[in-house]
Amino acid sequence: MAKLRAASIDGKLSQEFAVPSHVDDVKELMSAFAELHGSAGRKVVLITSGGTKVPLESRTVRFLDNFSSGRRGSSSAEYFLDSGYAVIFLYRHRSLYPYTRLYSGINLLDSLQQGSGSDQVVVNQEKLPKIDKVLKRYQQVKKEGLLLPVEFSTLSEYLHLLKASAQVLCTLGPKAMFYLAAAVSDFYIPASDMPEHKIQSSNGPLQISMKMVPKILSPLVKDWAPRAFVISFKLETDKSILLDKARKALETYRHQAVVANVLDTRRGYVVVVTPDTSAELILTDDEESKEVEIEEKIVSNLTGAHTLFISKQDGPS
Amino acid sequence: MAKLRAASIDGKLSQEFAVPSHVDDVKELMSAFAELHGSAGRKVVLITSGGTKVPLESRTVRFLDNFSSGRRGSSSAEYFLDSGYAVIFLYRHRSLYPYTRLYSGINLLDSLQQGSGSDQVVVNQEKLPKIDKVLKRYQQVKKEGLLLPVEFSTLSEYLHLLKASAQVLCTLGPKAMFYLAAAVSDFYIPASDMPEHKIQSSNGPLQISMKMVPKILSPLVKDWAPRAFVISFKLETDKSILLDKARKALETYRHQAVVANVLDTRRGYVVVVTPDTSAELILTDDEESKEVEIEEKIVSNLTGAHTLFISKQDGPS
Repeated sequence: MAKLRAASIDGKLSQEFAVPSHVDDVKELMSAFAELHGSAGRKVVLITSGGTKVPLESRTVRFLDNFSSGRRGSSSAEYFLDSGYAVIFLYRHRSLYPYTRLYSGINLLDSLQQGSGSDQVVVNQEKLPKIDKVLKRYQQVKKEGLLLPVEFSTLSEYLHLLKASAQVLCTLGPKAMFYLAAAVSDFYIPASDMPEHKIQSSNGPLQISMKMVPKILSPLVKDWAPRAFVISFKLETDKSILLDKARKALETYRHQAVVANVLDTRRGYVVVVTPDTSAELILTDDEESKEVEIEEKIVSNLTGAHTLFISKQDGPS
Repeated sequence: MAKLRAASIDGKLSQEFAVPSHVDDVKELMSAFAELHGSAGRKVVLITSGGTKVPLESRTVRFLDNFSSGRRGSSSAEYFLDSGYAVIFLYRHRSLYPYTRLYSGINLLDSLQQGSGSDQVVVNQEKLPKIDKVLKRYQQVKKEGLLLPVEFSTLSEYLHLLKASAQVLCTLGPKAMFYLAAAVSDFYIPASDMPEHKIQSSNGPLQISMKMVPKILSPLVKDWAPRAFVISFKLETDKSILLDKARKALETYRHQAVVANVLDTRRGYVVVVTPDTSAELILTDDEESKEVEIEEKIVSNLTGAHTLFISKQDGPS
């Protein structure tokens, strides 16, 4: 029955969500990336990051969005790279990009100044902390081709690009990890129900009816990449329902782990829930003062579990 | 009756939209800014820019947004500064800032490189076109204190900060201009109707009922800054209703002009509609190839009209 449901979700995806025109090009890029790193024996993680845009009109002026700066995903990408993974970074247009979060609140022009040499423009390094070190690391990652960025804006783009990535990464078997940190909408308006033009305020108060977004995790785990190591995220505002929801997700989708967190405390506290375990990861005050990030702990926990997962699948049973 | 309506809108604003905690501090900054430039005989324009965030939950995970990169507002700010205006720039957090739009699609780290001198980091000027010239202009504007940036995210913040700015700028009489380019939501959910926690997808499809946002233009024109020169914007996706809607807005609010534009063609075509006139502003192919911007024409049209407006009010009748 789960198999049946997964297939029907896949069908819904094709029918109700417009396929982005560039999905085949992106799939080719991802495929080459997976082959290159797979043959080098490297593990590959697909990280999703940022919120999804859900249009209310076909010629879109208004849309529903989910809060997400992309900080969790972009920061995690850096720690996965440090752990030797190759990273496909599927992220919301203009959300945070790896190695840029220290500078996200800064106006570029405030950090530049005329250099001493003729018409040179140089960075004021007081304004961009650690830029020297960060830039070197960024350039090294880029030169070694370890990071493949893929952008999305709308929910449709996200869903189809995630499917494409899963179909590509399934060739890596258990060496592929999915780290689904994006804040994906649970609701959408099908293209057939959407007005073409901007909704007019002269028509009075607005009633919006939204349908449930198909649970993409189901075909991903069952059909598209059944041997991969799959991590989903659960963000709640109400702590009392968090662990229950995480466990229910694991029972429903049968994937490997849920990273559970609460909106207000997400930077300092998460619980990594697996079918058999539950690990609280906490930043101490001391760690916070030293600018340790919770993502370092999350990634460390999961890369460890991933290694174990691979050895169990590859080894003689 | 219009007076009555304006007062009731003002009341609704206080009751149904939370006052941001920093509004008094911002008001003080704007007040000092207006006094400084007013006493120097300078005209002051309040530009609003970017979309507004409308929360669906008090602890907000989901929100409604309006499409706007902030390009129109930020680009216009530069032309107003070039025309000798002092500018208060009321803009959505992370939307485009004056002098940065040439670089908005570029990852900062891709544009930097190690300099020849020890640990210097310099700009690769091929990656940041015209940065030398743009940076000089930006620094000059900053040094002369001609630009006061004020950020908002939510609709509530926008409404209260706009009211504060109007109450401040009314002291400048006709020398104040309001250039309301922000993409403001027509709909919202009152705090009293909002769930505290994240809406659960397990409850099934989502029905959202939104109320009409009070038409803030009404008290702005009638009560808060009755002698100012006020420009509103009208964006539609359907060209056939555009001019009608612009004229209706002028009849309703009795302000000075509407800049009317259509989503698909907004970068090359607008109509400036006043009670007596309607001027089409069009970018020719030749101008487009020379990177002329439509905002240069809009600002030129309106600063001309503003000068005339001031002379009519100040001169003997």
